[in-house]
Amino acid sequence: MGRIITIGREFGSGGRELGRRLAEELHIEYYDREILGQIAKHTSLAEEYIRNVVEHQPHNLLPITIGRSFAYVENYAFKQAQSVYQAQSEIIREMAAKSDCVIIGRCADYILRNEKPFRIFVYADLESRVRRSMDRRTDQEQITEKQMKKQIRDMDKNRARYYEFYTGLKWGDKSNYDLCVNTTDTVIRDIVPALAKMLG
Amino acid sequence: MGRIITIGREFGSGGRELGRRLAEELHIEYYDREILGQIAKHTSLAEEYIRNVVEHQPHNLLPITIGRSFAYVENYAFKQAQSVYQAQSEIIREMAAKSDCVIIGRCADYILRNEKPFRIFVYADLESRVRRSMDRRTDQEQITEKQMKKQIRDMDKNRARYYEFYTGLKWGDKSNYDLCVNTTDTVIRDIVPALAKMLG
Repeated sequence: MGRIITIGREFGSGGRELGRRLAEELHIEYYDREILGQIAKHTSLAEEYIRNVVEHQPHNLLPITIGRSFAYVENYAFKQAQSVYQAQSEIIREMAAKSDCVIIGRCADYILRNEKPFRIFVYADLESRVRRSMDRRTDQEQITEKQMKKQIRDMDKNRARYYEFYTGLKWGDKSNYDLCVNTTDTVIRDIVPALAKMLG
Repeated sequence: MGRIITIGREFGSGGRELGRRLAEELHIEYYDREILGQIAKHTSLAEEYIRNVVEHQPHNLLPITIGRSFAYVENYAFKQAQSVYQAQSEIIREMAAKSDCVIIGRCADYILRNEKPFRIFVYADLESRVRRSMDRRTDQEQITEKQMKKQIRDMDKNRARYYEFYTGLKWGDKSNYDLCVNTTDTVIRDIVPALAKMLG
């Protein structure tokens, strides 16, 4: 049975680990932002695509909200972000067409909506996300719990904004997902085999 | 491993069926409103409890919101509803202390919060809930899809109000649950074994 699994997740919820382990358990491919970025770098198709978007769509104006009014914005950074999104979407579609896989973030649930992926959202209470994030930081990272809390909030705000901008849907709203998993007080490793069984 | 599983669900989502099958699969007890009502009827403890609440708490005044202002209400129907809730809570606590079980609705997730139950919420898109509800209606029920849609909306409004009144929490908000299962286009029977494995 063909299986594309997409995973949205709150920062520090362990969603990425869950996705990685799930892909291992199901013996299917795994893609996250880093991997997709690497693929983009080494794919001539993607490079061409980006060039194409940037060069040949000079009037690609998009309405964005500033304060409470609309403004039409055309600037390089914005167009570049759009191009990266387009190239990523292209790669995601290609990878999903090639073989079963788990894809983390990147609006993959929306990009692949016609393929009917199984859409998981992973979340946890703030306290447990702070703990998880503190545990997995490197020795070099000097960060207090308070700073971590702020970082988590900021990251999630960005994810929500990114998701909503490209999909028009509310990030983390359960109606956009097939399964929402609360990982508060959960050891990710322990729940993956059963999840895999549900999806196998 | 001791397991209390509570299930909240949108009307027509198949949550009750999911709970019943889950209890079967795990060989544990199953309680829904009807069953709890039957127990209440035949339990002297519960009867006494209700009598106690009604008779000995004449000043059991509770603030409720009317429009945008608060009012203190004391009327028989209201107090009776309170008593039924209290008696139900008592029975739910008793049943959960006795053995592992699945409990449908009745704010059991909140009532048993100190026992750390596994809290599931079952939901689905409106269209699929209408379909499920139309399929399971008896021959005697003459009801159009439009009427069914209204009934579903009304039922859920009542459930949300009931839950929020007694718990102070938002019904269906994923942060109040451990797992949220979208049953749109899902055959309940097919997902229960894996769910049971996850909870076993």
